[in-house]
Formats: sequence, structure tokens, C-alpha cells
Amino acid sequence: MELRDMKTIDTVACVGAGVIGGGWAAYFLARGLRVRVWDPAPEAGERLARLVDNAWPALTELGLAEGADKDAWTVHTDLAEALEGVGFVQESAPENLEMKQRLLADIAAAAPADAVIGSSTSGYSMTEMARTAVAEAPAGAARLVVGHPFNPPYLIPLVEVVGGEHTAAAAVDWAAEWYTLIGKSVIRMDRELPGFIANRLQEALWREALHMIDNGEATAEQIDRSITDGPGLRWPLLGPMLTFHLAGGQGGMAHNLDHFGPSLKSPWTRLEAPELTKKLRDAVVDSVDEATKGRTIDELIRARDASVIAVRQAIGSIRRDYPGGRE
Amino acid sequence: MELRDMKTIDTVACVGAGVIGGGWAAYFLARGLRVRVWDPAPEAGERLARLVDNAWPALTELGLAEGADKDAWTVHTDLAEALEGVGFVQESAPENLEMKQRLLADIAAAAPADAVIGSSTSGYSMTEMARTAVAEAPAGAARLVVGHPFNPPYLIPLVEVVGGEHTAAAAVDWAAEWYTLIGKSVIRMDRELPGFIANRLQEALWREALHMIDNGEATAEQIDRSITDGPGLRWPLLGPMLTFHLAGGQGGMAHNLDHFGPSLKSPWTRLEAPELTKKLRDAVVDSVDEATKGRTIDELIRARDASVIAVRQAIGSIRRDYPGGRE
Repeated sequence: MELRDMKTIDTVACVGAGVIGGGWAAYFLARGLRVRVWDPAPEAGERLARLVDNAWPALTELGLAEGADKDAWTVHTDLAEALEGVGFVQESAPENLEMKQRLLADIAAAAPADAVIGSSTSGYSMTEMARTAVAEAPAGAARLVVGHPFNPPYLIPLVEVVGGEHTAAAAVDWAAEWYTLIGKSVIRMDRELPGFIANRLQEALWREALHMIDNGEATAEQIDRSITDGPGLRWPLLGPMLTFHLAGGQGGMAHNLDHFGPSLKSPWTRLEAPELTKKLRDAVVDSVDEATKGRTIDELIRARDASVIAVRQAIGSIRRDYPGGRE
Repeated sequence: MELRDMKTIDTVACVGAGVIGGGWAAYFLARGLRVRVWDPAPEAGERLARLVDNAWPALTELGLAEGADKDAWTVHTDLAEALEGVGFVQESAPENLEMKQRLLADIAAAAPADAVIGSSTSGYSMTEMARTAVAEAPAGAARLVVGHPFNPPYLIPLVEVVGGEHTAAAAVDWAAEWYTLIGKSVIRMDRELPGFIANRLQEALWREALHMIDNGEATAEQIDRSITDGPGLRWPLLGPMLTFHLAGGQGGMAHNLDHFGPSLKSPWTRLEAPELTKKLRDAVVDSVDEATKGRTIDELIRARDASVIAVRQAIGSIRRDYPGGRE
């Protein structure tokens, strides 16, 4: 499989230009790329212009690539025309399986033969989305990869990358490298998992919140403030794993699991805990050891504290005016 | 019930001075209070001195109260001596129900008759923790309140406040007002719920993460980065509810639930979703409306974007050096 030399790419396509696709377009523009947009909505161009205008100050503040031009985009109603010659395609159609299947088959057939095609889907597996493409345009189907962004794609760095059964490994590698090249934080998954990683975590939290509202146990304001003024202040630096690593004191994750393991049986959420076997305990400890890359608990604590202070100071003036907000 | 005039309080007690109790002590000192510590460990004083020394630069940066003195604490091995004359007691013993029951009964008997007693428990209900106190010192038991902080208590503003069956409503009110007065972000819960609010949410996420590691679906590094570089960047300003409010576009939460409701049935987490009845749908929409206090979607988007940029810029230099870290 011959794939485009990514260093030579100057034009990409965005298929679908709603909140997510338009956000991708703004990001690509800020990276100095030209963007060709396909979107069937008559107001697509107007909507995209507004989105890019709104996003541009933020993108400017984070740093534009040389030659970045917020007007370097065109809207097309013909898919083949939109895809002509582009080095990469980002599909961001609505989350509708049949629509995605049809559209990805059309893209697979019409895109340049060396262009990788990323899909912004937040929940479907590429194996199911590619079904029609595999039947109609198998060569193109081999270049279909999930590249799942977070809203807004022009500000949140994370992209989850995973292929389907019929995706060539080289296309997944290419996509992971491409997103990294343009400044994204890439998680390359080895196998398909519904909701990928971040959405499974987010969704667990969201469902627990819905249960609480359903039972009259908490309001939206309380739920949000319990995060914004609590664990949410730690998470921009240390995720849930390293947060619990620090909750174990100097003994770290090992101490945490050995000591607080039994509390996994507490009814602290409606989600059932896995059995904390010796095997799981060791797997978690090993995985955390790898993630910390030799940093001591004290080093992590200092970084966490510096981060919480920086976050609180940085957004103090914004938060002051917000729901339950405080500096 | 006569409770202390909180404006006159100049001395408080910390019962237990480990990571949490010591963190409380550092916070109280920064607020200009004197702290009397009871902790049976022979090295308690030395440990606390180190903790306060480490926390003080952060507390100084966030702003000390007038007269704040990092040395204004004493350690006592006699509980009655530690509690003598104090205006408030914060209990932060290890999470062991029998130990908490015994200790809270002793505190309830020995504390000044007008002092409210807060417990840092992260999971027990005050009803179960107060059982011995109710039998032995019922007057004191009426002043026992959960005041659940987040680690480190000197940096994370959140405190969840809730009473038990035998707690006087006046004591819960007093505690909520007190923690607010000293600069905390208080969530006053109307009824006991295992894990309170934030820990239920955190724990749902943590359990989902453990399941993923158990099944070899993700590493600790991937789990953490999926939060730090993804939703974790949004959560310091907008919690999970307002985040999903914005995910609905201009239609907000109502559009989100009406449109994406069916995806609640997707296997995106091991936590089962509640049935999305009309009643739940309306309750969520109403609760979000209350939380947004009339702010439009566009206003919220601008604030979110400003916050994400501020957070990324503020901790860029810290993150650069961190697991999977990037600016």
C-alpha cells in the first residue's frame, strides 16, 4: 500500500462541517493546510465561516503554523470534487450508522488512492462502518481509520486512533503519525472497543450522574461543581490512574489497592467493580509503574500541586462568574 | 443548640494528621487559625511539619489570611487536651468504621459543647459512624457532620457536607457556613448517599478503568492521557452536565437527550444506563437550566474555550515533562 508522503500534504478534505467537522476544518487551517469541505447543507459555508471566525482567536493564541490562513477553504456539493487531490480526508457526518456506511463507501471509492481516511465517529467500530466500503471499494476500505476527536477539535488535543478488521495496519500507523505530526495527542488502540477509551470513562461518569438525578440525589449544579471544584482540578495533569497512585501515599498504587481494595465492594457507584484478583492488582501496579516513568511520589505530588495552582489561577477570573464558580 | 459564633473562632482541632488531616491543618493555618493536633503516631509532629513546609509555598501563592503562621500548631497525645476550647474539630482518622465510631464518640464527649465536629470520611455515612456517640454522648453526637474534602485539602476547594440521622440540622447548616467562610466550595447534601457525589462519579470512572486494564483493553498511560488531553481539559470549568449541554449544539441538553438518548443503550461502559423516561429527560433539562443561570450556549462555549486555553497555557510547562505530556 502506497500512502502519501505526509510531509508533502498541503490540502485535506473535511466531509461534513457541523460542530465537529467544522472544528477539524478550523484546526487544519490553523496548521497551515488548505481545506476542501463537502457538506450537503445549503447553509454549510455560512456556518463554517462563523465557526472558524469564532475559533480563530483561540487558535491564534495557541500558535498558528506559518502561512495559516483562515479563509483557505472551499465548500463543495460534489463529493468527488471535494476529494480531488487531497492528502487526507476527515469524515465527520452525524452519528448514524447507515449514513456513515454509505458515505465512507463513497469516500473510499472517490478519494485519491494514497489518501488515508479518518472518521470522527464517537462510538461505531470501523468494522461495522466499513461494511459497504469493503463490498464496493475494498482498496479504499483498507485506508479507513477511526480518528476520534474531542469537542472542540481545535482545542482539545486528544485523538483516538483504531482500525477495523479490514483496515491495513499501515493505514492505522500512518494516521497515528499524521495526527501527531499536526500536533494532536494520539492514543493508538490495538483493538476495537465500543466507545474507545475516553468515552467509556466519560460515559460511566455521565450515567452515574443521570442515575443521581433520576433518584433526586443531586442536582446538575452539584454534580458539576463536585467535579469542577474537586477531582476536575487534578485531571488536566494527572488522570484517574495517577490520581489514585498518589492517594496511596508513599506506597502508591500498590498500597492503594492492597489497603483500599475492599472498598471496591462499597456501593459507591452503580457500576460493579471487577474482582480485585492478584493478577489484576499486579497488572494495575505494573501499568502505573510504566506510566510514571520512574517519577517518585514526591515528584508527582509537586507537579500535581503546581498544576492545580496554575489551573486555579489561570481560570480564576473566568470561573468567578460561573455556576458555583470560584477562583 | 448553642453553636459557637464562627467569626470568633481562632483555634481548631485536627484529630488525625496523616495526608488528609495534615492537609486540613495546613489549610487552617493558612486561613490564620491556630491548630491543635491529636495523633497517636510518635512521628506525627515530624510528619506534619514536613507536610506543612511542603504545602506552604502553594498556600502562599494562593493567598494567606492576615496573621497566618505555619508554626501555629501543637501536637497532643491526650484527646481532651487537644480539644480544649477549640471552636471546631476536623476528624481525619483512617477509613476504618470501628475506629471512626470509637473516636467520634470520644470527640463528641470531650469537645466543647458548642463546637461542631466535621469528619473527613470519604465513604461512611454519619448515621453509621455516629452509632457509638449517639449511645454514649448524644448531645455531642448531634453536632457530628460529614465534611468530606478532596486531596490535597489545602488546594482542592470542594467539601461535601451532610449530616446523619442524629445530626441536628443546625449543625449541618453551621458546618456548611463555616467551610464556606474559610474559603471552601461547599456542596450541602440533603440526604446520605454512599460515596456522596464526587466519589460516586470518580469511582464509576475508576471502576471502568479497572475493567479495561483487567481485559487488556487499555494501559494506565492511555487511560490517564484519554482524560488529561481530552475531557479533563474541559472539566475545571464545566462539569459533565454542562459539557453534555454544549454537546447538544444550540439545542443544548434537551437536544442532546432527545437526539443521542438511544446511545445510552450502547455498550460504552459497563455501567447500565437508567431508562431515559420523559420524567428523567425533563428533570435533567430543568436541572441544567437552573445550573446555567440563563447563560446562552454561545456564552458557555466562549467561556469553555477561554478556560481550555488558559488551562493548557498555564500548565504547559509542567505537562511537557509528564506521562504522555504535551503543552
